[in-house]
Amino acid sequence: MTRNFLQELLGILLAYVGKTFDRSSKVLDFHHPHQLKEGLEGFSLELPDQPENLEQILVDCRDTLKYGVKTGHPRFFNQLSSGLDVIGLAGEWLTSTANTNMFTFEISPVFILMEEIVLRKMQEKVGWAAEEGDGIFCPGGSMSNLYSLLLARYDRYPEVKTGGMAELPRLALFTSEHSHYSIRKAAAVLGIGTKNVFVVKCDERGKMIPDELESCIIRAKTSGCVPFYVNATAGTTVYGAFDPLHNIADICAKHNLWMHVDAAWGGGLLMSKRHRGKLQGIERASSVTWNPHKMMGVPLQCAALLIRKKGLLQECNQLKAEYLFQPDKQYDVSYDTGDKSIQCGRHVDIFKLWLMWKAKGSEGFSMQVNRCLENAEYLFNCLSKRADFELVCKSKVAPKIKAKMMEEGMVMIGYQPLKDKVNFFRCVFSNPATRKEDVDFLLDEITRLGCGL
Amino acid sequence: MTRNFLQELLGILLAYVGKTFDRSSKVLDFHHPHQLKEGLEGFSLELPDQPENLEQILVDCRDTLKYGVKTGHPRFFNQLSSGLDVIGLAGEWLTSTANTNMFTFEISPVFILMEEIVLRKMQEKVGWAAEEGDGIFCPGGSMSNLYSLLLARYDRYPEVKTGGMAELPRLALFTSEHSHYSIRKAAAVLGIGTKNVFVVKCDERGKMIPDELESCIIRAKTSGCVPFYVNATAGTTVYGAFDPLHNIADICAKHNLWMHVDAAWGGGLLMSKRHRGKLQGIERASSVTWNPHKMMGVPLQCAALLIRKKGLLQECNQLKAEYLFQPDKQYDVSYDTGDKSIQCGRHVDIFKLWLMWKAKGSEGFSMQVNRCLENAEYLFNCLSKRADFELVCKSKVAPKIKAKMMEEGMVMIGYQPLKDKVNFFRCVFSNPATRKEDVDFLLDEITRLGCGL
Ligand SMILES: Cc1ncc(COP(=O)(O)O)c(C=O)c1O
Ligand SMILES: Cc1ncc(COP(=O)(O)O)c(C=O)c1O
Repeated sequence: MTRNFLQELLGILLAYVGKTFDRSSKVLDFHHPHQLKEGLEGFSLELPDQPENLEQILVDCRDTLKYGVKTGHPRFFNQLSSGLDVIGLAGEWLTSTANTNMFTFEISPVFILMEEIVLRKMQEKVGWAAEEGDGIFCPGGSMSNLYSLLLARYDRYPEVKTGGMAELPRLALFTSEHSHYSIRKAAAVLGIGTKNVFVVKCDERGKMIPDELESCIIRAKTSGCVPFYVNATAGTTVYGAFDPLHNIADICAKHNLWMHVDAAWGGGLLMSKRHRGKLQGIERASSVTWNPHKMMGVPLQCAALLIRKKGLLQECNQLKAEYLFQPDKQYDVSYDTGDKSIQCGRHVDIFKLWLMWKAKGSEGFSMQVNRCLENAEYLFNCLSKRADFELVCKSKVAPKIKAKMMEEGMVMIGYQPLKDKVNFFRCVFSNPATRKEDVDFLLDEITRLGCGL
Repeated sequence: MTRNFLQELLGILLAYVGKTFDRSSKVLDFHHPHQLKEGLEGFSLELPDQPENLEQILVDCRDTLKYGVKTGHPRFFNQLSSGLDVIGLAGEWLTSTANTNMFTFEISPVFILMEEIVLRKMQEKVGWAAEEGDGIFCPGGSMSNLYSLLLARYDRYPEVKTGGMAELPRLALFTSEHSHYSIRKAAAVLGIGTKNVFVVKCDERGKMIPDELESCIIRAKTSGCVPFYVNATAGTTVYGAFDPLHNIADICAKHNLWMHVDAAWGGGLLMSKRHRGKLQGIERASSVTWNPHKMMGVPLQCAALLIRKKGLLQECNQLKAEYLFQPDKQYDVSYDTGDKSIQCGRHVDIFKLWLMWKAKGSEGFSMQVNRCLENAEYLFNCLSKRADFELVCKSKVAPKIKAKMMEEGMVMIGYQPLKDKVNFFRCVFSNPATRKEDVDFLLDEITRLGCGL
């Protein structure tokens, strides 16, 4: 029964994978919330008291996919995470079948070691020496950024763990106006407060201006704050800009500040010989956020935090719960890494990345990242040749085009305003399935949908 | 190619599922870290520069499972999360195939609605009125507990979001000595500090003593702290004890404190008419942690935080990032729930629970939970009849038995010391596959392994 059921499920999933890669099928079949809630064609979201039979369960599975969004479709440009890597998928299926947890070697012997090996490899790509470096996989880049702040605070003031912020001066941290909002969110969570996040101006390309950083630091000091942390972004969320890491590292060294690099999006470029130069200086960071679930196309969630200083992560977070981290086990308990985490149970996010790395090799990841950047270059060239686009449209047309686009469902891209710029389209290239023809299609669709307005 | 590869993978996974349920197969095939790292029988964990072929990838998958721990084996008693529910598994496979993200209705229309519906159902089980209640699925119960503290702090002092802890008096919170360590960890992360966590004494059964709570509150006030939060545990990690919720709720009401109930483990009992009485008073909580990935046997990760007060979660956490939460979308944007989260990208943890609920009905979950408790009762009865066990062994024998047990790999159970008690075995019943014969087997094995010592 298990066998037949899972075999039928496989059929449904394979059909979905096939459609995902089929350009003639829609990216999504849009319905409003109330339509889905009312129950479309017998697809009811309500939960029963009595069991449904397996046949109905399979129908539910088919319908769930039908009304969803094909994030792996070559014409899905909407999010930084996209693509549907079949090996990564296999990795996730195996992970869920193993259904275990990262807290100890005892119950995750293989995955714990894989995490160590992959983290070490990523640290090498960052450029840290063999005796440096620690890290952990977290549920997303926002959590990685939170960890970095937590560690920086603890490194400077270890008494915060027991005494809380009450024992500390007013702390200040620095991040650019184009940086990801998770830095400010983490400051709120950690009890530092968003108003102690100094927002540093960027140039017109979205890169942090080092002189502005230095003025902010001085301003913070004058106002009685103690600066302790700078976040530099390597690949900003909207422009894909790279902050000048060497200049920022110089300033951090001068003022004795923790330097974090949020390379959630841009980290993938470290895999590419051609493009890794954009992250020059990252080896000077105290910590790095790098999300394989973005540019590298690994299924969600897969996000690493790398820390240069060994031992700090453990010291900062450990509480030595006796029911998990018994010191008198029969194996080397330094492999029980769970107390490094602010979680207890921790999902196995490592296996799919490890398996993809095996299947592609470092070379394969490099090629994949290069192709994303080629697509971006192609888009840029197309746009500069076309008269029917402005690089940032000076009108309110984007939300209207997007609404039509969602209803037709053939392509998906995000839009947003930014400071003095009104709504514009943000085109993401992380999907390995995307080809030049998809970029052409996108531009033609935007033109077509915009024409009638 | 995709089809053949995934079909072969399915074969490997089905074989593993078969072994998981086969009592004659081992729970684990133990190896030390260094053995696994050296590469057993050609299984290399190292990452290559050049791609491996698909055949090798399938071998890697088989080996990964081979050296892992079968957490769904009927004789796995080691962790609060266990079992291998085939429908839950199907749910995870579909989730990873859909590979999307919970931040907006735009890219997760179906899953966002499922989360709303399941949360509402859980709130009903807690006993909240229809107009009350909000919630979110988080990466684990520890994060749910962290959210509860964050919300309680914000509810009392909304200025903390911008100003940080610097603007607040010294806060104090209360939790029992048997409560989960994630409460203290969260206090460290949030900048409250672990020494401001007042640890309340328990009776000999592991239940918080209400009078002790009240004395702690008074002591905290006298020492200049401002009490704001009490964590009551419904199902402690080691004893499975239930704190007296009504008494605690009375004290919280009297002192105007946020009452959180950590029902990460015990929440499943709310599904059972026979046992839900153990959580009487939970309806008076301000927030509840409830992990379907524990007692209810849902695959990891699946953890809910429920909050009684509507709107608070959004207010506390929102930062209104323009690239995600555009207000001018074509649909009802109140369904873009992502800004309630302290994460940005958020894994879809809801589908497998929704699907299991469909397949079992509320009735099925009730029966499943009842069976876990019957197993526990059976163990208790067996022990009281046997002369070769003490309910808590007064010796150092547990770690030695455990080491032998791991090496033989036929059964798995955790041990630990607790206060004046030396190492004892903690037997967990959450695995739906466990039958009485497995309990018998466990006891006989412990006796057999212990005999030679
Ligand atoms: C009572 C209790 N609360 C919270 C947790 C933490 O849950 P998680 O491992 O999902 O973070 C546990 C885990 O064992 C627990 O027993
Ligand atoms: C630069 C940057 N950092 C961090 C994040 C957060 O990553 P996650 O969604 O995995 O939390 C994002 C997400 O878009 C990002 O663009």
